[in-house]
Amino acid sequence: MGRTFKVIFQPAGRRGEIEEGTTILKAAQRLGVDLEALCGDKKVCGKCKVRIEEGYFEKDNMESRMSHITPQEPTADELKHIKPEDGPGIRLACSCEIHGDLKVFVPERSRAGKQVVRKAAKELIIALDPAVKKYVLTFTPPTLHDMTTGDYERVISRIDEIYGIKGLKFDFEALLQLQDALRNGDWTITVTVWMDKEIIKVEPGHVDVCYGLAVDIGTTTCVGYLCDMSTGSVINTESIMNPQVPYGEDVMSRITYAMTNPEGLKTMQDAIITGLNEIIDKVVSEIRKDGPHPGHAIDDLTIVFNTAMHHIFLGLNPVYIGRSPFIPAVQQSLDIKARDLGLKINPGAFIHVLPIEAGFVGADNVGVLIAQEQYFQDDMVLIIDIGTNGELLLGNKDRVCSTSCATGPAFEGAQIKFGMRAAPGAIEKVKIDYETKEPRYKVIGKADWHTHIEGKINAKGICGSAIIDVIAEMFKAGIIDKSGKFVSDLGTNRVRKNAEGKPEYVLAWAGETSIDQDITVTQGDVRALQLAKGALYAGVKLMMQKMGVTKLDRVELAGAFGSHIDREASLTLGLFPDVPIDKVVVVGNAAGDGSRMALLNKNKRKEADERARWVEFVEIATEPTFEKEFMQAMHIPHMKDKFPNLKALLEGQKAPAAAGIKG
Amino acid sequence: MGRTFKVIFQPAGRRGEIEEGTTILKAAQRLGVDLEALCGDKKVCGKCKVRIEEGYFEKDNMESRMSHITPQEPTADELKHIKPEDGPGIRLACSCEIHGDLKVFVPERSRAGKQVVRKAAKELIIALDPAVKKYVLTFTPPTLHDMTTGDYERVISRIDEIYGIKGLKFDFEALLQLQDALRNGDWTITVTVWMDKEIIKVEPGHVDVCYGLAVDIGTTTCVGYLCDMSTGSVINTESIMNPQVPYGEDVMSRITYAMTNPEGLKTMQDAIITGLNEIIDKVVSEIRKDGPHPGHAIDDLTIVFNTAMHHIFLGLNPVYIGRSPFIPAVQQSLDIKARDLGLKINPGAFIHVLPIEAGFVGADNVGVLIAQEQYFQDDMVLIIDIGTNGELLLGNKDRVCSTSCATGPAFEGAQIKFGMRAAPGAIEKVKIDYETKEPRYKVIGKADWHTHIEGKINAKGICGSAIIDVIAEMFKAGIIDKSGKFVSDLGTNRVRKNAEGKPEYVLAWAGETSIDQDITVTQGDVRALQLAKGALYAGVKLMMQKMGVTKLDRVELAGAFGSHIDREASLTLGLFPDVPIDKVVVVGNAAGDGSRMALLNKNKRKEADERARWVEFVEIATEPTFEKEFMQAMHIPHMKDKFPNLKALLEGQKAPAAAGIKG
Repeated sequence: MGRTFKVIFQPAGRRGEIEEGTTILKAAQRLGVDLEALCGDKKVCGKCKVRIEEGYFEKDNMESRMSHITPQEPTADELKHIKPEDGPGIRLACSCEIHGDLKVFVPERSRAGKQVVRKAAKELIIALDPAVKKYVLTFTPPTLHDMTTGDYERVISRIDEIYGIKGLKFDFEALLQLQDALRNGDWTITVTVWMDKEIIKVEPGHVDVCYGLAVDIGTTTCVGYLCDMSTGSVINTESIMNPQVPYGEDVMSRITYAMTNPEGLKTMQDAIITGLNEIIDKVVSEIRKDGPHPGHAIDDLTIVFNTAMHHIFLGLNPVYIGRSPFIPAVQQSLDIKARDLGLKINPGAFIHVLPIEAGFVGADNVGVLIAQEQYFQDDMVLIIDIGTNGELLLGNKDRVCSTSCATGPAFEGAQIKFGMRAAPGAIEKVKIDYETKEPRYKVIGKADWHTHIEGKINAKGICGSAIIDVIAEMFKAGIIDKSGKFVSDLGTNRVRKNAEGKPEYVLAWAGETSIDQDITVTQGDVRALQLAKGALYAGVKLMMQKMGVTKLDRVELAGAFGSHIDREASLTLGLFPDVPIDKVVVVGNAAGDGSRMALLNKNKRKEADERARWVEFVEIATEPTFEKEFMQAMHIPHMKDKFPNLKALLEGQKAPAAAGIKG
Repeated sequence: MGRTFKVIFQPAGRRGEIEEGTTILKAAQRLGVDLEALCGDKKVCGKCKVRIEEGYFEKDNMESRMSHITPQEPTADELKHIKPEDGPGIRLACSCEIHGDLKVFVPERSRAGKQVVRKAAKELIIALDPAVKKYVLTFTPPTLHDMTTGDYERVISRIDEIYGIKGLKFDFEALLQLQDALRNGDWTITVTVWMDKEIIKVEPGHVDVCYGLAVDIGTTTCVGYLCDMSTGSVINTESIMNPQVPYGEDVMSRITYAMTNPEGLKTMQDAIITGLNEIIDKVVSEIRKDGPHPGHAIDDLTIVFNTAMHHIFLGLNPVYIGRSPFIPAVQQSLDIKARDLGLKINPGAFIHVLPIEAGFVGADNVGVLIAQEQYFQDDMVLIIDIGTNGELLLGNKDRVCSTSCATGPAFEGAQIKFGMRAAPGAIEKVKIDYETKEPRYKVIGKADWHTHIEGKINAKGICGSAIIDVIAEMFKAGIIDKSGKFVSDLGTNRVRKNAEGKPEYVLAWAGETSIDQDITVTQGDVRALQLAKGALYAGVKLMMQKMGVTKLDRVELAGAFGSHIDREASLTLGLFPDVPIDKVVVVGNAAGDGSRMALLNKNKRKEADERARWVEFVEIATEPTFEKEFMQAMHIPHMKDKFPNLKALLEGQKAPAAAGIKG
């Protein structure tokens, strides 16, 4: 351990002794300071700007002048992101090392904030047949004539006799509960049985309730649905930000973190296990108020996630899925003892990890698959699941193909100048007047829509769904053209040139914001979104070509992002080929629905394993026509494809853009 | 926490702060002082005598007069054991509480000493077919065409293809090793497979050696045999005293300890797990000198023990096997993950716990059963396994009965005035001249036999096997009669009366000992042995009656004690019915042999489960004729039975006792 220095973060007030050479970002993570790091230490997102301050440093109630050691000069990476208008002392926290006592100010724009969780459970119709069931057994107390029969054998033979379940075994932890349960329950016990194979819990007396937890771990958000296994209803939903976010905002950043830090995998695994235990604590807080282990009331847990989250959660190395030939450690579903993972539910319970499809298509997509059941349908359905990662399913009862789209993080607000997560202060919906080009917008945490004349509303940035909105609106209002370029001379101060001479659209004036800057949509933002939507569209197009499909019967938008996206805006931008607007369906968190279905019906688990193998994975990046399709799909909506439904829709609205859309 | 006092133990020099009211025995255990406690705190054995001393107490290099608080007066329990010749200040450590600073001297006789372990492995002929096997697999490195196949699936399909093993699953810990093993081993790996069901380890490259550990946990001694699973040979044997001894010398004392101490079960379980981990560390020290977890080289472990040790080891409550109707928690064999028990072998490995027969007849007896294979024999065989507990098996291929004998601890040296464990200084063999009544004896740790004229040899006490010896010799030399009474007026100073007027035989004069006292065999010692052998004989007799057996073809003496017992002495005393001396066979540690067989041949595990249920358990204590048989069997050899073989044997030796034995 080398020298350490005092570092204090403002306005949070967190402070600590930090080893020389540590970056400010690492110091912030260590001290629990809320600091945005979208790219996960890769020095590319420029979101982690902080201001190095001088001044007095309060120490043990004594004020002492901080030793005045100037940090090293900004690196080339930093200089790319730091603009003169940022003001003096601005550095990138990921690049600036600590070589003396420091006071660091984190501007509001660099604070991550608390994610607004948008993964509520919807009503599902599921035939109840859970993997875990409870059975009540009553015995006559043993006498000296029974002394050659153990408690274990007595239970096994009784459960066969009454319920016809043969060949059961005791989990070791459940066996430890048996003796006292029999005697404390006056020879009546309730045994919890997993898959008719193993007794995973023994409780004294007659116990009715049985709880299970369906989990969906997203790159950004984790959610747990506590279910009553006898009714199938969701009793409680709890969610948290994925605690791995500080180690990288997207999947590739986390894989990089695991590769470049010796303890990186373990750190991220511990983080998500701790996070899931937090969900467990919260979700049971209503049902179990006493006893040392309230989480032990949960007897089953199903879980879905993308492949990288899957690997990290299990402690498997995610590096091999991040490099060619992209081989996952395991594809099939796994049943792992809760105690082997350190999850604080019934230690005898199994965690059912749903299968993954391929290196890029994870258990979350399998969740979508078994929830939406494309494979039972006649209609040709396209399901788009855009979380932080984009996954596609296309097909019907005859054939389903899947792929993963390298959409990049633009849909989530990264690489967007004022992009941010769906947190309070984020603009989430936008309308632009076609004539005046004046916007109206809605901010998360505020009930009403805002126009520029209403004064300060403390907007802070633009969240993912609103980026789709605003760019679609800019297109419809004629502010940008089909190629994404700004149209000049519109006669409004909303469209202007920035310091570098690049055009931008002012969505909110500084006075309406909490960051004291105009919130703008730049030419770069439009380009970033075009890249993302181009990748998505090209993926769909290539899948359709591969399958010989020319027309979609329905488009289902799934995922947290997919649940809040504006159907019309997404059709306008051309995220997917033309369909009637009423055939665009928002299906909510389908991955989470699949997790719940697997929890409540064990046949769904079998279906998941079978269908995960049946689905054909299509690698689109290696298709020879990808590059061409991708370039054409960057256009709004697509350079060559026809969009009769969209054209009709826009004409109905009399939007200037309608003329440019092919009918 | 109340007041604490300084306590120092001499000559060990251990010291510490002990809470007021703690007994000296508990303080000794806490400070790791070697202090004999045969009865485990039940205040009956009188072995834990210590001397309370006054004087100066060295504290932090300052000498300060100890506060002079006299301990409470001796209790009635103590007074039963404390004799005037013990000298001043003698107390029972189990009864005397601490109410002030104390200096305690532990006389040599009260020190437990290091057990001489007598459980060497003998040559066994076993068909090798272990539960755990290693398979080498080689793969061609995957390409982009294989990207929808995970490492897991690749291994499972390959092992089916080459070795024809179907439906294999990965243990979770083994799965975590898979990715790196494949890549570090250049796509050649060695998988360790348990019962053709589960992959429990993955190693890079080609690995030949496979190790297993066969364990036998006795009440007093624990031993582990490290086996090379490809040859079946024992590579290393390590043993330790059972670390539960401080909590009770015999099974009932430990059950009592578990009942009366809230953390008693956990304390004893932790002790034996720690002890077994010590054996694991030692036993592998030769084969694995590097790496962080040398014990992980062990891929399988089998274990036998009596029912109480079985329950405590697993963390099951032993109380119910100690009280009517004596119901064990489980009888059948168990396979428990090493990691669930905290054993430091391969964490994916299973611990195979052999089945138990009944509340009193444990897995150790099942080990004896599968090692000796009575059930395949025409001969009517009696197997006596006397460890700290006595267990009997009687039968042949048609029928085998088992029982447990409450022999008490006399065979092990407890309840014998100068009895001690088989540790250095213990007299282990005795011969008495029929004419002069002068003894010769052999002391553990000394090569030669000793006679009284050879001077000091530092004898300290008499171990279990020598008690049989000396009392048989006393009988043959006419010092005691058939009823066990001392014969008077033999004209030798070796037989004398003690302070209470009770007769005793001086085996060693004070000058030959390290305890500066004459080592004697008292009338009480003879009675204690008669009780033990009476219980054993009555048990055999009742089993024979129950089975309609009148004649034994062979007697096999098993166990640590049975391995060192003198065949002739045991026949002389009448531990079992009359048989020709050449039909008395010492078979060594048959329980340990059974553990080894189960390790090396998985069919032996099946055999153990089947035979454990097939053997008939006989409860002899409830037989109406037990009391009568027991009284008659106290005689040397038995009041009414005929012993033609014994009579012939003694006549050949011209022993005075021969005349009294029925032909």
